[in-house]
Amino acid sequence: MNKPVLGIIGGVGPLATACFMEALIRKTPARRDQDHMPMIVFNDPQIPDRTAHILDHTKPDPQPEMEKVARWLVRAGADYIAIACNTAHYYYEGINRAVHVPVVNIMEETARRLARDMGRGSTIGLLATEGTVASGVFQDYLELYGLKTMEPTAEDQREVTALIYDGVKAGASYDPDQLVSLAQRLRERGADAVIVGCTELSVIYQGLADKPAWLYDSLDILAERCVRLYLAAHESGVLVV
Amino acid sequence: MNKPVLGIIGGVGPLATACFMEALIRKTPARRDQDHMPMIVFNDPQIPDRTAHILDHTKPDPQPEMEKVARWLVRAGADYIAIACNTAHYYYEGINRAVHVPVVNIMEETARRLARDMGRGSTIGLLATEGTVASGVFQDYLELYGLKTMEPTAEDQREVTALIYDGVKAGASYDPDQLVSLAQRLRERGADAVIVGCTELSVIYQGLADKPAWLYDSLDILAERCVRLYLAAHESGVLVV
Repeated sequence: MNKPVLGIIGGVGPLATACFMEALIRKTPARRDQDHMPMIVFNDPQIPDRTAHILDHTKPDPQPEMEKVARWLVRAGADYIAIACNTAHYYYEGINRAVHVPVVNIMEETARRLARDMGRGSTIGLLATEGTVASGVFQDYLELYGLKTMEPTAEDQREVTALIYDGVKAGASYDPDQLVSLAQRLRERGADAVIVGCTELSVIYQGLADKPAWLYDSLDILAERCVRLYLAAHESGVLVV
Repeated sequence: MNKPVLGIIGGVGPLATACFMEALIRKTPARRDQDHMPMIVFNDPQIPDRTAHILDHTKPDPQPEMEKVARWLVRAGADYIAIACNTAHYYYEGINRAVHVPVVNIMEETARRLARDMGRGSTIGLLATEGTVASGVFQDYLELYGLKTMEPTAEDQREVTALIYDGVKAGASYDPDQLVSLAQRLRERGADAVIVGCTELSVIYQGLADKPAWLYDSLDILAERCVRLYLAAHESGVLVV
């Protein structure tokens, strides 16, 4: 196979999408422009808010629009697809069924990495949107890999939500150390490692000068997986997810 | 008009493309994901090196592939196009002719801004690839707006080239202060302002803690122009470049 083309369902959120592209590029072993991965990104602002719909099913459903973008990406030439949004993975099965190419699953990849690094039976803290936490999907993936999930306290979850919605998504200023403090409090309550499980929080994580070794960024893990898939497919001629 | 879709000819270079997306997002007045610009990005690593071809026309010509991507973007739904690469604008006329939608010109927008801010007759330093400098296209746009161009000394140009090719494009480490020093030396020789005229240098510029007011980033100016076009078209119903 020539160079497989990565399709990115973008705009969920927009800054997280740019941050994901940058992570992909920085993680690709390349000495010049021509060594990089081909990718198609559709930044679609029409995708309704995922958390709003998960918490209240009378709100607009983002699934049809995400399926539309996935099909659009395949028609445009994508050989595999990634979504730089954890909460969107509540709708993963539908998106995956809508196309015949593999859709890399950020939650499953993160759970697999945590199981490998921390060992089965470990307790993993989860920093994510209310939608992700309430849906229980991330917890299910962690359980599948023998891991226990620890959620923030109600008060801390409100702080996480504000950081995502009033900080990064709103284009406002915020204190990056808040992310580490929130993660640290999960550690103090007994978490062996903590997941940055919302790609808006990944935008903050990527800018941290000191990244604690026990803090795992789901966007980083998704990017590493996509780069490995790309390199393996480019070498072997087969794309195996 | 509904929300006009921006098409981006990406991968020239890849990191500059991600940096351009981030600049577009940060400059858009938005409080939530749904307020952002729709955009389609095709990161195409098959576009040959622009400087290599400008300096030696026996090298692969990037123009046909860039025209192909431009036409692909229009078929995919782009209402206007941007290219996050100054050197690529050597081929601007051909790309612009290849499609019936406007292609925003990074060099012309930069020249216009400099003329407005600095006044006609000013001397503008140019930090760019050897290809851009040798082609004389940026100098022509500056002249069109009544501005004089100052190029780096041969020794400094070698340093600029190394920063672009051995630093940013190679994914290697570099000293960000080198960009400011190179610009400062143009100022000392009499430049009223200095253009960051290569989007790989923009990647460095965007990361600077202190941005001198006399240092103008072409990628920033292109992003601001695209955001203004988007907002005006969204409001008035007509896209006028």
